[in-house]
Amino acid sequence: MPRPRTSETRERIRAAALELFTRHGIRQTSLRQIAEHLGLTKPALYYHFASRDDLVVSLVQPLVDDVESLLADDEQTAPSTPRELLGRYFDISYRHRTVTALLLRDLGALSELGIVDRILGWRFRLVELLAGRDASVADRARALVALGGLGDCLVLLGDTPVETLRPAALDAACSALGPLADRQP
Amino acid sequence: MPRPRTSETRERIRAAALELFTRHGIRQTSLRQIAEHLGLTKPALYYHFASRDDLVVSLVQPLVDDVESLLADDEQTAPSTPRELLGRYFDISYRHRTVTALLLRDLGALSELGIVDRILGWRFRLVELLAGRDASVADRARALVALGGLGDCLVLLGDTPVETLRPAALDAACSALGPLADRQP
Repeated sequence: MPRPRTSETRERIRAAALELFTRHGIRQTSLRQIAEHLGLTKPALYYHFASRDDLVVSLVQPLVDDVESLLADDEQTAPSTPRELLGRYFDISYRHRTVTALLLRDLGALSELGIVDRILGWRFRLVELLAGRDASVADRARALVALGGLGDCLVLLGDTPVETLRPAALDAACSALGPLADRQP
Repeated sequence: MPRPRTSETRERIRAAALELFTRHGIRQTSLRQIAEHLGLTKPALYYHFASRDDLVVSLVQPLVDDVESLLADDEQTAPSTPRELLGRYFDISYRHRTVTALLLRDLGALSELGIVDRILGWRFRLVELLAGRDASVADRARALVALGGLGDCLVLLGDTPVETLRPAALDAACSALGPLADRQP
């Protein structure tokens, strides 16, 4: 078992990395800069993360876990109404909004880590949950507009209190779904 | 006046740069690589573009010009209905879809060139055209969902023939607008 002190250092490294990646870009931030920012030696940092990619994956993992679990729930055990599904997707995106903004900013830097393919894969699974298998182009467009729009609201109306933003974004997204909004799970 | 041959070389450089930037990322592509790809010497390339930033700006400029002219038209001389405005925005995004995809992929690399601020500025001006000044959060969310969703349809349903994709994306975007879709210009 690591000592509490060790996992605390790990969290400080993750927080500093997220801050520096967001400010300067992932590829423009070295492990040395992160170590210096925290007053750590490079070996102390390497003890926790073997590479910058390791750090990026560790930052993205909680979001990955939440979305995968939402999709697995909905696909296998407890399908929800379109508004419930969009609401859960909004909540996950909101909870991980700093990492989500980093992903959007640095999509190029992430393509080698397979993260972009994963995000695209989610999008298509969500479209299938909302519009059904073999949906028409019209219905897939409705699902894409609803899903893409939620993310844009989070990023571009980020100063709005979430209790105002959430219903506004969900109303707009459900409108985009049109008749699909009444689809039974 | 440059000789025809010169402007032809310039276009070949722009096309190769767009291809390599899209494949490898802007920051991962050097002017040397672009020159080698074309069998040009570096000085021959420098004759046309003093830096990679120069090349990026030259690639993005036609999109910038088209969007600025759409906004100026609509704000000053010929306001259009929400569906017409979204349609013109779709057409511009479609015409420049390779550059648009590059922008999305490499947002981070573009922030220093002021391009990201410019794109955000457009988004907010379009929201104002669609939802009005001092619009509620609910109405701004509707406009953002409509606009963001159009872009997502272009990127994620890019294999669909445009004559099918355009009405599907516009129907979904206009649904997202809800009552705003009937707003008189």
